Amino acid sequence: MDDVQNHNDERGIRIDRAGISGIRYPIVVLDRANEKQHTIATLRMSVAVPHDEKGTHMSRFIEVLNEHHGEVTMRTMPAILKRILHHLDADSAKIETHFPYFMTRIAPESGAKGLMDYECKLIAEASKDQDDFVLGVRVPVTSLCPCSKSISDYGAHNQRGYISIDLRPLRNDDGTPKLMWFEELVTIAEKSASAPVYPLLKRPDERFVTMQAYDNPVFVEDMVRNVAAKLQSDPRVAWFRVHAVNQESIHNHDAFAEVTWSQK
Amino acid sequence: MDDVQNHNDERGIRIDRAGISGIRYPIVVLDRANEKQHTIATLRMSVAVPHDEKGTHMSRFIEVLNEHHGEVTMRTMPAILKRILHHLDADSAKIETHFPYFMTRIAPESGAKGLMDYECKLIAEASKDQDDFVLGVRVPVTSLCPCSKSISDYGAHNQRGYISIDLRPLRNDDGTPKLMWFEELVTIAEKSASAPVYPLLKRPDERFVTMQAYDNPVFVEDMVRNVAAKLQSDPRVAWFRVHAVNQESIHNHDAFAEVTWSQK
Amino acid sequence: MDDVQNHNDERGIRIDRAGISGIRYPIVVLDRANEKQHTIATLRMSVAVPHDEKGTHMSRFIEVLNEHHGEVTMRTMPAILKRILHHLDADSAKIETHFPYFMTRIAPESGAKGLMDYECKLIAEASKDQDDFVLGVRVPVTSLCPCSKSISDYGAHNQRGYISIDLRPLRNDDGTPKLMWFEELVTIAEKSASAPVYPLLKRPDERFVTMQAYDNPVFVEDMVRNVAAKLQSDPRVAWFRVHAVNQESIHNHDAFAEVTWSQK
Amino acid sequence: MDDVQNHNDERGIRIDRAGISGIRYPIVVLDRANEKQHTIATLRMSVAVPHDEKGTHMSRFIEVLNEHHGEVTMRTMPAILKRILHHLDADSAKIETHFPYFMTRIAPESGAKGLMDYECKLIAEASKDQDDFVLGVRVPVTSLCPCSKSISDYGAHNQRGYISIDLRPLRNDDGTPKLMWFEELVTIAEKSASAPVYPLLKRPDERFVTMQAYDNPVFVEDMVRNVAAKLQSDPRVAWFRVHAVNQESIHNHDAFAEVTWSQK
Repeated sequence: MDDVQNHNDERGIRIDRAGISGIRYPIVVLDRANEKQHTIATLRMSVAVPHDEKGTHMSRFIEVLNEHHGEVTMRTMPAILKRILHHLDADSAKIETHFPYFMTRIAPESGAKGLMDYECKLIAEASKDQDDFVLGVRVPVTSLCPCSKSISDYGAHNQRGYISIDLRPLRNDDGTPKLMWFEELVTIAEKSASAPVYPLLKRPDERFVTMQAYDNPVFVEDMVRNVAAKLQSDPRVAWFRVHAVNQESIHNHDAFAEVTWSQK
Repeated sequence: MDDVQNHNDERGIRIDRAGISGIRYPIVVLDRANEKQHTIATLRMSVAVPHDEKGTHMSRFIEVLNEHHGEVTMRTMPAILKRILHHLDADSAKIETHFPYFMTRIAPESGAKGLMDYECKLIAEASKDQDDFVLGVRVPVTSLCPCSKSISDYGAHNQRGYISIDLRPLRNDDGTPKLMWFEELVTIAEKSASAPVYPLLKRPDERFVTMQAYDNPVFVEDMVRNVAAKLQSDPRVAWFRVHAVNQESIHNHDAFAEVTWSQK
Repeated sequence: MDDVQNHNDERGIRIDRAGISGIRYPIVVLDRANEKQHTIATLRMSVAVPHDEKGTHMSRFIEVLNEHHGEVTMRTMPAILKRILHHLDADSAKIETHFPYFMTRIAPESGAKGLMDYECKLIAEASKDQDDFVLGVRVPVTSLCPCSKSISDYGAHNQRGYISIDLRPLRNDDGTPKLMWFEELVTIAEKSASAPVYPLLKRPDERFVTMQAYDNPVFVEDMVRNVAAKLQSDPRVAWFRVHAVNQESIHNHDAFAEVTWSQK
Repeated sequence: MDDVQNHNDERGIRIDRAGISGIRYPIVVLDRANEKQHTIATLRMSVAVPHDEKGTHMSRFIEVLNEHHGEVTMRTMPAILKRILHHLDADSAKIETHFPYFMTRIAPESGAKGLMDYECKLIAEASKDQDDFVLGVRVPVTSLCPCSKSISDYGAHNQRGYISIDLRPLRNDDGTPKLMWFEELVTIAEKSASAPVYPLLKRPDERFVTMQAYDNPVFVEDMVRNVAAKLQSDPRVAWFRVHAVNQESIHNHDAFAEVTWSQK
């Protein structure tokens, strides 16, 4: 049976990325409190295609995924990438994955517990001489407008915002990326906003977070700067991009801010 | 050339709706301030298929749309439906269309003007013995939580919410639906919330709406009841559904409420 | 601390549904092959609010969800609804949940295995004198156009389509809904299309499904009729709605068809 | 009234981008056939914030947009950016806009006409010493799989795909970007696929495009290479990224490929 993908290509154009996207798959990720967490990821897997090859073998991405039983963590990704490089005979491979990650959150006054989901991502790339690893998290927060508070006799507009952090860790001596937990990034984001948001708040908690937000007004510009200042001083961080967006409660559009930073 | 859609069908199952969806098309709608407004709609057009016919001729929907040069209003829809019934030889036809509709909004203190978009819809249906017409609008608003205000020493959580109204007007003596403007529904929705949202607010305006919202706290339940009370007393309304949803600023989920009402 | 939601309301308007939406939560569902399956649901939970009560207590929905540890199946939903009715002091309660559900699929020639996700839903409602239960599934399929095949010398346009089935089962003598598996609905949908789609196909499989689709051309109208005919003859079905949509490969819009049926 | 955004900031962190997003606005764009076209854009407008300023004045973006009456073209964007730089007292400004753009398409055999929408974008950026301009278009196409055709006795799986081109033109002697029409990019994309897709096809047209696609099988890899080869030889192109994705008709995931190229 003819293997068309194996044919030669004459156009002389190397393809940066060819692969499959929109794959949903049950995976296991590292969980700080419970060691491991089962979740469901959306994946994108790709390889580079050399200038003289017609195409790649898309079905082999799924085969590699099956071999690894969906364990996709900072620790297993190098092995998965290595397997892709070999099985698809490629010189560069990339996996992008995002998934909901659940943490138990405790209400500030009542102590009521609830599960809350954070949209997280892991991106890993490997080629013959180098590899790359980025983790990311999107954290919903409350932001209260300093301008509105300052100019009004009472009240202040506030809203749900989202702080997204993408981060490239520095490496340990053995070349592995320094460990950073999603939980740490969530905490950094929440402390950079007016108040956290919660899955479950009873009335004493609602009172607490209402006043906490009023006491800590921030612009989107403040939120990205607060996160940036904390990450710049973290000895594990090589690069980050932080993005904040507010679902403005007095406008029909959003406000956003973004800072990208790289260790010299 | 064989016309497969015209074949007989033996399964004996009438199809309620067969048609095309996801069509984008530039249309003209009625505008209270400027007579007409050019916008871009997403359309769904369909007919019923009798139990003994294999299928409908999908390309004819586009032909009918082209014939009418994209004028899709309360006044032209009966003619478009009649044309579909005839051109597709059907006994029932339906058009569903939604589109952004722009209104000039004036900031409450500075008088600054800006354009604001509202997601609107028109749905019309016709068969041999009856027809139907529904209009709808989605209005972004500010809502401020009465509970949070009541239990806190200062501040109150608030957020952007959306009030959606779907409405079936009563008929005039000549059978045409009684005229209702999107502008009227927008006003009803905004007056049912804590404050309107605006495209453009200067600082005196921001002060104004911040305090206006604090002075008018509402739950989602209040917003749907406020709208419902106004529509129930409007002599042009035969049926409505009103839905409100808050992008809760202290939670990572939304709160919603819904009321459906029909004139006896 | 004032409980504003408990205040009286004077507007005299009963609210059909008030609740929370957009909650993501890890749940367990029944799995025909493996007994149980862990997945992640998006939920909407609501109650009716009587005409003289100001609002409902939204946080209690999350409390009930936590009590049941996220086991949301046909068998547990009545107990969850009963608990909501009691804990929120309501006379009507509803849970709507949708989630990806995974099944192992075997390629038709090579026997290669892969996991495939189907978007599923469970909707349950309870009030003092009656309850309701609907299950649903969305199945991706291949559809090949009978008209294109018939009029062309070679080839035929085909595309990915989606068949969605919503179904209300009849009841057993003890009042519980008759058991129907997602797996059964997936099979019915796939047999109603030109060919199934797969997560993993090797070249002999690709040859097989290419020719299988060419041998079984169907319009969207055929797909809904094929499904409808099978469900009408199933002694467990009280009501269904079947919807099919094709991502037309020769057009920039979609084609769809829909049939709703109810046992007399 | 206090102007909090004007306060000094001590954290010493420059913000790359702060602004507003999700604004919908009616705009006018250049149209090759009709000179100008009215459409509706979604915009993102932003400026950089110096390390010692607390924030920017978000309302001024809307003011600038209003001043220009929504004329957003390759020719007007430099003036809009200049105005933002001045009105917001910034050293860097950016506008990102995307919108549906309509073209009349003629069916290949019947000559039947229909309007078809393409998702387009214009991105412009200006700072004191340099500016940037990127245009983009997303083109739906038909792709037919060469492998499926080669290994099967009859038929071949095909599907709707999308080819996206982002492109930075070279400059004329006066510094303005060389003119490239959306219409040209649409043609390049369609000629790189198995066949175009159309808004309106009669049966002779359907026969034509069915066989055209069968005669021109392409992988996603072929589509990006075909586009890349054409753009590399165009004397107006400084840089491009071409991305193709297939809604695979035999799989529940997509296949994609991407090439980025820059003139030396």
